[in-house]
Amino acid sequence: MKFRIAIIGTGNVAWHLAPALESEGHTVTEVYSRDLHRATQITNRLYATEPTEDLDFSESEAEIYIIAVSDHAIPSVADSIILPEDSILVHTSGSVPLTALAYSSASYTGIFYPLQSFSKSREISFEDVPFLLESDDHEVLRKLKILAKSLSPLQYVVKSKDRMALHVAAVFASNFTNHLLRISEEVMSRQGLDFEMLKPLIIEQISKSLQVGAKAAQTGPAVRGDIGTLDLHYQFLNYNEQVAEIYRLISQDIIDSN
Amino acid sequence: MKFRIAIIGTGNVAWHLAPALESEGHTVTEVYSRDLHRATQITNRLYATEPTEDLDFSESEAEIYIIAVSDHAIPSVADSIILPEDSILVHTSGSVPLTALAYSSASYTGIFYPLQSFSKSREISFEDVPFLLESDDHEVLRKLKILAKSLSPLQYVVKSKDRMALHVAAVFASNFTNHLLRISEEVMSRQGLDFEMLKPLIIEQISKSLQVGAKAAQTGPAVRGDIGTLDLHYQFLNYNEQVAEIYRLISQDIIDSN
Repeated sequence: MKFRIAIIGTGNVAWHLAPALESEGHTVTEVYSRDLHRATQITNRLYATEPTEDLDFSESEAEIYIIAVSDHAIPSVADSIILPEDSILVHTSGSVPLTALAYSSASYTGIFYPLQSFSKSREISFEDVPFLLESDDHEVLRKLKILAKSLSPLQYVVKSKDRMALHVAAVFASNFTNHLLRISEEVMSRQGLDFEMLKPLIIEQISKSLQVGAKAAQTGPAVRGDIGTLDLHYQFLNYNEQVAEIYRLISQDIIDSN
Repeated sequence: MKFRIAIIGTGNVAWHLAPALESEGHTVTEVYSRDLHRATQITNRLYATEPTEDLDFSESEAEIYIIAVSDHAIPSVADSIILPEDSILVHTSGSVPLTALAYSSASYTGIFYPLQSFSKSREISFEDVPFLLESDDHEVLRKLKILAKSLSPLQYVVKSKDRMALHVAAVFASNFTNHLLRISEEVMSRQGLDFEMLKPLIIEQISKSLQVGAKAAQTGPAVRGDIGTLDLHYQFLNYNEQVAEIYRLISQDIIDSN
């Protein structure tokens, strides 16, 4: 089953999603941006898609409308968009509830959330992207599953009430691990050491953790209860009180979780 | 240049290092453990190596003695070992200074630290393992470089004064990132959600971070300054005060680093 789809927004998700949908045989009818030039940057990558800066889609032939704008802009786009009969309106956000689309003119609403970190400069293989789907309508959910399945073998139905937990978990696993790598980079560069040295360790640690689980994969001074080393490290970090406190607190939590 | 090497210890480093040295053409003369049975488990993987439970190596033909025991046991092993003339004694620890070998009977001392997380159950390709080397003796350092080079293209000379910074950086990049994955696993399982969903995101985030640097790779509510989401997440975590505080503190540090 192939769909006619309009994409509202021109961020990183739209940038990757639009050509992927087209290459799976779906038709991208329009790409919307407040700034027509930005819409054109995406339609230029497509076969025959109209760029538009008008949220009036009453004449559109699309049946699925995918809002891929920043979280805070979703409600205002949903409230302003004018849709034809029987249209399905979805957004692609992991942290905005389905109810954000409740006051739109759409006949049906849903969530079509690709759980991945998108950057324009990095290619994404959608085969590895889990799609998290939600809709109150059984038939709409079925269509979203078909659409997701055309892009990726990984689909999950996740209710809005669970999406908060999912987002918190993603923040720890992605944003926060990334920040710890940043702290690590800074500790190294401050000492004139090459961060390259640590990369094989990081890759092996994450691989191991994903394979055997983080509890089994843990090593280091905290899990060994090596208080002497923990104290030395804490003192070493005294040039940055906040980073020292992060060191102390995570070490304590490793000790307490053991 | 090939060496005759004795290995003191039977932990994860010895388990992987001994066969790797042999397969590069070096001779592993003895493997020591306090428990002869454990030494035999390693010598069984080698061509013709003596297991021993005696630290008297005065009759050994090895020229390099590699201590691969737990950190806290290094000084006592170094103090007890009896070595022949002109022998080189090294340890494989990232957190024990070279001076821990100062009172040994070795003619020369050094550090031969493979910066990687070793587990018996996971194969390690030494080609990806950086070796961090140190010695006060120029000729010894040259030999350690040759030995490391036979195993891996990655060698760095790192002084003991810098090794503390390196270890702190490794704790953040490896032990702490692993613990954040554990917290993430727990947030998911508590909600009955499948952690598998998050694995592609984690892999992409770490790959991106190592490619473009963690500052450029950062996304999420903290770097966006999305205080509303940060508050919701913090309240969501109220079932675990310490984890909530980790959330608050890392988010604050992301905001402050931006």
